[in-house]
Amino acid sequence: MEMPLQVIVIKLADLGERKAISLISNILSKGDEAVGIGDDCAALDFGEEYLLVSTDMISKKTHIPKIMTPWQIGWFVVAINLSDMAAKGGRPLGLVLSFGLPGDTSDLFLEELTRGADECATTYGTSIIGGDTKENPRVTICGTVFGTVKKEEFMSRKGIKPGDVIAVTGTLGKAGAGHYAIKSNMKDPRMLEGLLEPKPRLKEGMTLAREKVVSSCMDISDGLSSSLYQLQELNNVGFEIEREKVPLSQMLLKLAGENKNLDVYEYSLHFGGDYELLLTVPLDEFEKVKRSVEKIGNHLTIIGQVTKNGDICVVDSRVKKILPDKGYEHFR
Amino acid sequence: MEMPLQVIVIKLADLGERKAISLISNILSKGDEAVGIGDDCAALDFGEEYLLVSTDMISKKTHIPKIMTPWQIGWFVVAINLSDMAAKGGRPLGLVLSFGLPGDTSDLFLEELTRGADECATTYGTSIIGGDTKENPRVTICGTVFGTVKKEEFMSRKGIKPGDVIAVTGTLGKAGAGHYAIKSNMKDPRMLEGLLEPKPRLKEGMTLAREKVVSSCMDISDGLSSSLYQLQELNNVGFEIEREKVPLSQMLLKLAGENKNLDVYEYSLHFGGDYELLLTVPLDEFEKVKRSVEKIGNHLTIIGQVTKNGDICVVDSRVKKILPDKGYEHFR
Repeated sequence: MEMPLQVIVIKLADLGERKAISLISNILSKGDEAVGIGDDCAALDFGEEYLLVSTDMISKKTHIPKIMTPWQIGWFVVAINLSDMAAKGGRPLGLVLSFGLPGDTSDLFLEELTRGADECATTYGTSIIGGDTKENPRVTICGTVFGTVKKEEFMSRKGIKPGDVIAVTGTLGKAGAGHYAIKSNMKDPRMLEGLLEPKPRLKEGMTLAREKVVSSCMDISDGLSSSLYQLQELNNVGFEIEREKVPLSQMLLKLAGENKNLDVYEYSLHFGGDYELLLTVPLDEFEKVKRSVEKIGNHLTIIGQVTKNGDICVVDSRVKKILPDKGYEHFR
Repeated sequence: MEMPLQVIVIKLADLGERKAISLISNILSKGDEAVGIGDDCAALDFGEEYLLVSTDMISKKTHIPKIMTPWQIGWFVVAINLSDMAAKGGRPLGLVLSFGLPGDTSDLFLEELTRGADECATTYGTSIIGGDTKENPRVTICGTVFGTVKKEEFMSRKGIKPGDVIAVTGTLGKAGAGHYAIKSNMKDPRMLEGLLEPKPRLKEGMTLAREKVVSSCMDISDGLSSSLYQLQELNNVGFEIEREKVPLSQMLLKLAGENKNLDVYEYSLHFGGDYELLLTVPLDEFEKVKRSVEKIGNHLTIIGQVTKNGDICVVDSRVKKILPDKGYEHFR
């Protein structure tokens, strides 16, 4: 009698989001044209350009805090999709949205949801060209953005070289400030804005791309530490972050000044939701790139260097330590 | 003292899916480039072509029968997206999928889901170029397909003229046969295939489009009667369907022969899920179009005529009656 093979079943909660994605990626018969799987956007060969496509699903409880208004939910789902486009230097052509909503959802909820989504799209020079509503017991919204980028301007997640510097746009900790405010029952909408109404760095992405010297780029949706570990997996390098150089949100600093228990370190290095761009660029190209980002009204700040050895370290008050990978990962 | 304005809140369950979509559509600031809102795909101006995009979300309980295997769920979500592309005559460039899955989902489920999706995509000459997994208490899958069509070949839902004939590809009632089999606890997989593994009519759509004489086209996802009412809303015409001419699935006829209580009329005229193409074409062009569909191994059958008055009638055993709008609509 043959013994049945023992099948070891792994739950997604144990596997984690990134291993689940790699499982999917190993099964797919990718088309010859596909470039950039495992990147912020999928990229398809389209003459002199790539057609970029990215999709993101959010759902109530897991991604949508209770305090979020329907308008903000609409804004949010468009913003995070545009952020993926920004990270590749792409120009969005449009978005389509699928709303999964409970049957007892009011028409006003749907209206506000649509208004928020529409306002985010038009703010960033694009539009929602299609939508669909389906019944779902839990509010679940899926957005897909598509756009184009010249091939020579496409910013991949791969291509980092030792000696490159690591930089971020804007400031970190805006989402953290919002999270702290919600936790502490503070209701000032300005404190929540960084978390609930992220600003996709589209202009910054296109500006960076045009310089053609950025060696890698991604958005920091899951937090800085998690993003660095994701880049490390794709590039045979390490990183050394200088904690004092990480640009911090004014709101986070203000809240930290007033509240001793606010952990600035945790919020700026590990907390997700800031949707700034994280990029690497050769040191001697940095000043030029920095100036072009300043011309469009944002900042670009060096936060560390790329190293040859594979570790990811953080230097804090002259002490160097391994930076743990603590970013948010779904299913975990 | 001012009286507060009375706000009348309507639940989506009362509003229905199509009114919800029209509510969304009225709010959106559509881009100048957008063509075909309210159609199976959104269409964007792209030089000599349109870029077509369509998105579809399905979720367990609402759209996914219990009996469906993970492989079939994967096949299904890709197939219904490709069907939208087929209805516009488009050539798919690729798909992206978002999987919303409970944390206790097994890795085997995810593997089979991905295999089914991949097999459907490759069967129809395209591929899945990006995917995403997120935690969701209810299995919820969102697919987005994008592709292109030459502008002069794009088949809109609008443009029907009195005197055109109405035709369908393949046969109707395949999904109905599957539904009946499940209801009656029949487990033969061949009976369920029409419902659980729909075949998108991509080759048929491209063939029809190349003839450039089709005056309107859509897929019959919500059933024949519902589809006709949707076309009527966009075109100032009526329809007269001849019930005896509606091509019926062999499986439905076989089951009906063996089971007196099976309502062939209901399943073929009102039941959704067949994903055949429903089109109108001038009578004098029909034979040519029919032959080109036969060349690729399918049938095209006239089921009625377009009329000037706005009613949708069905002629059955020489008796003409109004055809009720009984198709499946979400939230209702």
